[in-house]
Amino acid sequence: MLNGERLISRPIRWAMVGGGRTGQVGYKHRTGALRDNTAFELVAGAFDIDAERGKDFGVNIGVPENRCYPDYQTMFAEEADREDGIDVVSIATPNATHYDICKAALEADLHVICEKPLFFTTEEAQFIKELAEEKGKIVGVTYGFSGHQLLLQMRAMIEQGKIGDVRVVDLQYTHGFCATDEGDQKNDAQKWRVDPKVAGPSFVLGDLSTHTYYMSQLILPHMKIKKLLCDRQSFVGSRAPLEDNAHVLMHYDNGAVGTMWTSSINAGCMDAQRIRIVGSKASLEWWDSRPNELRYEVQGEPVQTMIRAMPYLDESCNADERLGALHAEGLSESWANIYLKFAMAIDAKDRGDKETLKNLVYPDIDTGLEGVRWVENCVRSADQGAVWVDFE
Amino acid sequence: MLNGERLISRPIRWAMVGGGRTGQVGYKHRTGALRDNTAFELVAGAFDIDAERGKDFGVNIGVPENRCYPDYQTMFAEEADREDGIDVVSIATPNATHYDICKAALEADLHVICEKPLFFTTEEAQFIKELAEEKGKIVGVTYGFSGHQLLLQMRAMIEQGKIGDVRVVDLQYTHGFCATDEGDQKNDAQKWRVDPKVAGPSFVLGDLSTHTYYMSQLILPHMKIKKLLCDRQSFVGSRAPLEDNAHVLMHYDNGAVGTMWTSSINAGCMDAQRIRIVGSKASLEWWDSRPNELRYEVQGEPVQTMIRAMPYLDESCNADERLGALHAEGLSESWANIYLKFAMAIDAKDRGDKETLKNLVYPDIDTGLEGVRWVENCVRSADQGAVWVDFE
Amino acid sequence: MLNGERLISRPIRWAMVGGGRTGQVGYKHRTGALRDNTAFELVAGAFDIDAERGKDFGVNIGVPENRCYPDYQTMFAEEADREDGIDVVSIATPNATHYDICKAALEADLHVICEKPLFFTTEEAQFIKELAEEKGKIVGVTYGFSGHQLLLQMRAMIEQGKIGDVRVVDLQYTHGFCATDEGDQKNDAQKWRVDPKVAGPSFVLGDLSTHTYYMSQLILPHMKIKKLLCDRQSFVGSRAPLEDNAHVLMHYDNGAVGTMWTSSINAGCMDAQRIRIVGSKASLEWWDSRPNELRYEVQGEPVQTMIRAMPYLDESCNADERLGALHAEGLSESWANIYLKFAMAIDAKDRGDKETLKNLVYPDIDTGLEGVRWVENCVRSADQGAVWVDFE
Amino acid sequence: MLNGERLISRPIRWAMVGGGRTGQVGYKHRTGALRDNTAFELVAGAFDIDAERGKDFGVNIGVPENRCYPDYQTMFAEEADREDGIDVVSIATPNATHYDICKAALEADLHVICEKPLFFTTEEAQFIKELAEEKGKIVGVTYGFSGHQLLLQMRAMIEQGKIGDVRVVDLQYTHGFCATDEGDQKNDAQKWRVDPKVAGPSFVLGDLSTHTYYMSQLILPHMKIKKLLCDRQSFVGSRAPLEDNAHVLMHYDNGAVGTMWTSSINAGCMDAQRIRIVGSKASLEWWDSRPNELRYEVQGEPVQTMIRAMPYLDESCNADERLGALHAEGLSESWANIYLKFAMAIDAKDRGDKETLKNLVYPDIDTGLEGVRWVENCVRSADQGAVWVDFE
Repeated sequence: MLNGERLISRPIRWAMVGGGRTGQVGYKHRTGALRDNTAFELVAGAFDIDAERGKDFGVNIGVPENRCYPDYQTMFAEEADREDGIDVVSIATPNATHYDICKAALEADLHVICEKPLFFTTEEAQFIKELAEEKGKIVGVTYGFSGHQLLLQMRAMIEQGKIGDVRVVDLQYTHGFCATDEGDQKNDAQKWRVDPKVAGPSFVLGDLSTHTYYMSQLILPHMKIKKLLCDRQSFVGSRAPLEDNAHVLMHYDNGAVGTMWTSSINAGCMDAQRIRIVGSKASLEWWDSRPNELRYEVQGEPVQTMIRAMPYLDESCNADERLGALHAEGLSESWANIYLKFAMAIDAKDRGDKETLKNLVYPDIDTGLEGVRWVENCVRSADQGAVWVDFE
Repeated sequence: MLNGERLISRPIRWAMVGGGRTGQVGYKHRTGALRDNTAFELVAGAFDIDAERGKDFGVNIGVPENRCYPDYQTMFAEEADREDGIDVVSIATPNATHYDICKAALEADLHVICEKPLFFTTEEAQFIKELAEEKGKIVGVTYGFSGHQLLLQMRAMIEQGKIGDVRVVDLQYTHGFCATDEGDQKNDAQKWRVDPKVAGPSFVLGDLSTHTYYMSQLILPHMKIKKLLCDRQSFVGSRAPLEDNAHVLMHYDNGAVGTMWTSSINAGCMDAQRIRIVGSKASLEWWDSRPNELRYEVQGEPVQTMIRAMPYLDESCNADERLGALHAEGLSESWANIYLKFAMAIDAKDRGDKETLKNLVYPDIDTGLEGVRWVENCVRSADQGAVWVDFE
Repeated sequence: MLNGERLISRPIRWAMVGGGRTGQVGYKHRTGALRDNTAFELVAGAFDIDAERGKDFGVNIGVPENRCYPDYQTMFAEEADREDGIDVVSIATPNATHYDICKAALEADLHVICEKPLFFTTEEAQFIKELAEEKGKIVGVTYGFSGHQLLLQMRAMIEQGKIGDVRVVDLQYTHGFCATDEGDQKNDAQKWRVDPKVAGPSFVLGDLSTHTYYMSQLILPHMKIKKLLCDRQSFVGSRAPLEDNAHVLMHYDNGAVGTMWTSSINAGCMDAQRIRIVGSKASLEWWDSRPNELRYEVQGEPVQTMIRAMPYLDESCNADERLGALHAEGLSESWANIYLKFAMAIDAKDRGDKETLKNLVYPDIDTGLEGVRWVENCVRSADQGAVWVDFE
Repeated sequence: MLNGERLISRPIRWAMVGGGRTGQVGYKHRTGALRDNTAFELVAGAFDIDAERGKDFGVNIGVPENRCYPDYQTMFAEEADREDGIDVVSIATPNATHYDICKAALEADLHVICEKPLFFTTEEAQFIKELAEEKGKIVGVTYGFSGHQLLLQMRAMIEQGKIGDVRVVDLQYTHGFCATDEGDQKNDAQKWRVDPKVAGPSFVLGDLSTHTYYMSQLILPHMKIKKLLCDRQSFVGSRAPLEDNAHVLMHYDNGAVGTMWTSSINAGCMDAQRIRIVGSKASLEWWDSRPNELRYEVQGEPVQTMIRAMPYLDESCNADERLGALHAEGLSESWANIYLKFAMAIDAKDRGDKETLKNLVYPDIDTGLEGVRWVENCVRSADQGAVWVDFE
C-alpha cells in the first residue's frame, strides 16, 4: 500500500515537452508524476508550440518563469548547463514529433518518458532503444491505463493457474466520440490524429488499441502473437486512408486465439476498454469504466466480482493500493502508479541497481517498440486486403 | 398486448417428433405451443427413440395413449387416417434426422416446425422449400430466442432511422458449458452435437450462432452479407473436426462490417447472446440474459435503458407483450410468441390468406435455409484456412 | 427439474371469478395454472362483472359457452349439480369482494385460490381459515412473485447457516406508476385500488408490500415480528386516507431489525422488489427485475452472483427449475410454480395425504392471514402517528 | 474544467495535525490538498502522537525536519514566529480532540480544516463558529465524498425542476467491515471509533452518516428536517452503547419524507453510499462506488444513465471536471475538489472578497455544525426509545 512516503532518495527533476493548456493529456502526466511530490518535481518545460502561451501556462502551474522554454532544443541546451538541471523529460506532443524529441533528449543525456504510439516504425524504435542503452537511460511509455492494479491481479492469477490454459484473448478499445467528422477539424487535439503526416500510419490502431494491446501483454507476459489479420475501415470518409474502426484476429504461439476491436465510431459506447481472458477453467474480465472491479468467472461456480483493495487480492496487486476499500480509485491513480515506477526505474538506473530494474514491471522501451510493431503488422495485413500475416 | 384470447378459429392439432423426457428442448416447444391453449393442442407424438419410454411420457403430459406412436412413420400414416388427425408436426430430434422427417411430414401433407440448424446443406433446404410450396404448407424454424419483443423494438428503431446508418454488427453467442470434454460422452443431449455424422459440418456455428445470426436478420432485414471470414478451433481436441470456438468477420452490402463470436468454451460466461448494432448516430444493445432491457446509446446523450412493456416502445414490439411492466418475461414468452406466429401462419396458409402471410414476421423456411447457408459459408472459409469467401 | 409431466393423477377442474379481459391479473393466473395442462384444466368461469363480455371472453379462451356464468353464485350452484363440476375456484376480483366469494366457495365445497390482500381484517381471515378446516379444503393465496426459485435458495442457505445470524431484513416494493393521479380515475384496474370501500384500509401496503412481506416469511420462516412502526403518506392528495408511500421499521423476536419501503410514487423506478438479508457473516440480495440472479456477499470475500438453474444451487431450489441454465425464466414460471403447489396441495387434501401437506411450502391461508395482520398492524401504527406498536 | 493552473495567487501554507503513517485518512487529505501544488503547499506538521515516528514520516513526505513538530501546541507557537508560518491547519485526529485543536488553531489565527464529525455537541460547534467569525477565519469540514461532481449535477437538476417536487430522500451509508468485533481492538484506526470517550455519542451515525447527510444537504439546499426518528442497535455487543447499525426516518418541512440507513455490519456490502432523490416527475440516484454515473429516471421514459464529463451535464458540474470523458475519476478527485474550494475560501477570506465567499459552495462550519446537530437529534431520538423528536 502506498501512502506517499518517498521510495527514492529525492524527487527526480522533471520537465515536459508539450502538454500545455490546449492539450488533452498533459494534465494526466502531471497528475501522475506529481502525485505525492516524492517521485518527481516539475522544474522546467517547453509546454506549447506557442511560446508565450506556454510560458504563461508554466508559471501558472508553478514552474519558474526562466525555466519555461520556447522549445525543447533550448530547454535541453540550457538545462544541461545548470547544476540542478532536469533529469528526465516527458514528451506529450503529436506522434510525428516523438522520434526527434526522444533522440534529442537521449543525446542530451536525459531519461525519457514518451506518449504512445511511440514512433512510426520499428526501425525508429530499435534505434532509440539502442541509443538509450548506450546512454544508460530509460525510456518509459505512457500507457496510462496500465497502472490500474487489477491488471496485476489478472497477471498474478493467470500465472498461478487460476484460469487454466489461456484459450481466448478478447480485447476492445472503442468509443463513439468520432462517429462523425465534426470534431476532426474543429478540435486541435483531434485534428492531427487523422492526418497521416502527423499521426503516422493509423488512427485508432495507434491511438487506442496500443493501450489495450500493451495491457494484454502485461497480463499475459509469456504469450506471443504468431500471426494476425486486420480488417480496417474509414467510416467517416475524410479520414481515409486512416481507419476509424478495425477488427483484428490473432493466433498466439500457445494455440490461443484473440480478437481486438478498436473504434472511434462505436456510437454511444461509454465503456471503452474491455479485456476478457478465457482459460480452460475460468475467465477474467475487466473494464476500464469500472476499474475497481474484476470479474472472475469459474465455469460451474457463482460469478465472482473482486473489488480493489480487498485483502483477498494478490500482494502484487495491493502493493499499488492507495485509498483503501470502498474508496474508488480512478485513472489518476493509474497514472500515478506508472510514473512512480518510472521514477524507481530512473533512480535504479542512475544507481546501477540492476536487481531492481529486473523486477520492475513498467511500460519500457520494449513495450513501446512492441506497440509500434503491433500497428505495423495490423496495417500490413489490412493494406493487403485483411489477410493473415506472420507477426514480425 | 396478448392475453391468451384466440387469434385463430380453433387450436391447431399438433404433434411432436422427439422432445421426450431425455431431451433438452422438447419442454420449450410445449411451453411455447401450448401457452394459452388457443393456438395449438397437443394430440399426438412420437416422442422418443425408445417407444415405451415415449408412450409413458406422452401419457404423462396428457396425450391419449393410442396417439403416442413408436416412430414418426407410423404416426404420419395413422394420423392421416383420422378425421381429427394432426395438422402440423414439430421436429425436435438430432440434426441428422431433420431432413428425412421434414420431407416425410410434408409428403404426408403436414405443416412442419423444425429445430435449427435445419439441415446439413442448402441443397436440402432448397428442396424442402420447393416441396413445401408445392404442398401448400409452411415450414417454421424454432429460433427460440427470436421471440423476445425487444428485438422487434430494435428492428423498428433502425427502420425509423433512430441510429442512423448501420456501420457495425457485433454478435455473440458463447458459453462455457463445454469448456472440457467431460459432458460430451456422458450427456446424451450433448453427445451427438460433437459427432459430425449426427450434428453435421459444425458444432457451435450450427448449434449456437445460427440463432444469433437469424436474430440479426430479424433486426436488419435489408442487410445482406457480401463476404465473410471464419476462423474456427477445437480447443477440446476430441471434438475435431467440429469447432467449439469460432470468430467470423463479415462485410455487408451496404458497407457495414460485422463480427460473430460463438463458443462453448467461454468458461464461466453466463451472458450468452449479445447483439450490438452500431449506427452513425447511436447504438442498440441487447443481451438475452436480461431480455427485458434494451440499451439505446445515442452519441453525446445519456445512455438510455428501455424496459419491456413500457408505452414508449414501438407498437410492433408491444403487440407481443403479455405480463405488463415490472413483470419479467423470459424465454418461455419468446417461444410462445414464435409458436403463436406459426399458428397464425398455418391458419392463414390453410385459409389462403396471402395478406396475413405477407405481413407476418416469423422464422420461416427462408430463415432456416439462410441459417444453413451461414454455416456452409463459415465452414468453407474456415476449411480453406480462415480466408475471405464470397457469401453464396 | 420440472418438464410438464403430471405430478398428480388428473388435472384439477378449475374456474375463475374475475380475471376477464379488462383485469390485469387474470392472465397471470391462467398462465400459472395452465402451464403444462397437467395440474389444472380451466372448465368454467364468471370472468367479468359484465356477463356478456365475460362470456365472450370465456369462449375465446376455450371455456364451453354454457359454463361461462354471469356471476359466481350461479356458477357455484350450477357446477355443484354436474358430475364433472369444478373442484376449485380462483378469485381475481377487487379486494372488497374476496371475503364473500371465498366464503361462498367454501360453503359450496370448493377449494379456493384468492388474490392478496386476502381480506380487510384478521377476523375475516380467521373465520375463513376455520371454515376451510371444517370443510376440508385448502385456501391458497396468489403471492405471485413468491414462486421464483432463488427465494428457496435464500431460504436454504439461511437455514444452513451460510450467512450466520440474521441481523437486518431490508425489504422494498416500490414503483412510480402512480406518481400522479392521472391513472387513478381513467384506469379501471387502478381506480378501485385507491377507494377504501373497495381496496380496504390501505393502498400500497396491501397491494404491494404484502407480496414482499410474504416473501420475507418464506425466506425466514422462523423469524417473527415483535413490534413495528409505520409512517405513511398520501403524496397524491386525492388518495387520502389511503397511502401511496410508506416506510416501516420492524423489530424481530431474535433481535434482528427490518425495514420495508413500499411506494407507488417512486418515480422512474423499474426495479420494484428488492430483498436483502444481512447476516453476521454474509448477506443475500435478490431483485425481482433480475429474477435469475442472487447476490451472495460474504464479508471479506469476492461478491458472488449465483445464477438460476446452476448445479451449485440447493436441491430445493432446482426442484422448481424448468428451462435450464442460460435460459431466462420470468414471472410466468413463478406463477406456474405456485399454482403447481396449489394443485399438489388440493390433490393431497382430497386424498387425505397429510405427509405431503406437511412438507409442501406454498402460500396458504396462514400466509394470507399473516398478510392481513401485517397491513392491520401497519395501519394501526400509522394512524396513531407512526408510533411503535406490538405486532398482534 | 480544471487543469491544475492556479486559481489563487500563491499556494497556501498548510500543516496537518495527525494524519501520519498509521492513520487511514491522512493520505486522502494530502492527495486532496496537494493535487496540483497550486492550492496548498505542505510546510509543517504534527503528524503523530508518537513524535519520533511523526518526524520520520514528515521528512519522508518532504516536510523540512525542523517543521515536523512533536505536538500541535508547539507547532502553533513556533509557526507563529515565522515569516513564512502556516496559514491553515488540517485536523485528522480522533473525534475527541477536534474541539481543543480547532480552538487552539483559531486562537493562533489559523484557518482550520477539520475531520467530521466535527465535535460532540452543537454548543461546541456554535462556539467555534463564533470564534472563527471573530477571528476572520474559515473552518472547513472534510466531507470527503462530497466533491464528486455528479452531486452538483443533482443539485442543479433539482433546482431546475427536472424531477418536480421532492417527495422522498433515500440515503444509505453502510458497509460490513465491522460485522464482527475482531477489528475493534486490533486496529488502532478502528479502536477509538467505538469508545464513547474518544468517538463521542455515536459510532456509525457520526462516522458514516454525517457524510451522506451533508451530501443530501448539498443536493437539496432548501430542504430542512422538521422531525426525525432514529432506531439504533449494537449488533456487536461490545460496542454498546455506541451503535453499529441505525435506521432514521425523517420528515422535511416541505412535506417530503426521508430515510437513512447507516451500518458497519451490512456484511459483504461494497456499494457503501447510495443517494436516491424521488421527485413528483423523476428520480435521481447516485452510488459512491460508481461515482462517474448518475441515474436519471423519468417516470414513463427510458432510464437514463448520465456519465461524468459529458457536455450535456450542467456547467456547475463540469466546472469541477479534470480528466475528460471515458476517464474514470475517483475519490481522490473528490478530495481535490473540496480542498481546492477550501483554498479559494481562505484566499477570499484573507482578501475580504465577500462576493466569492457568498457563491462558493463547500463544506463550511455551518455544515459541520449541522452534522453534529444531526447526530445529536438521532441519538436523542434513539435514547428515548426510537421516538419522533423535533429536529432542533
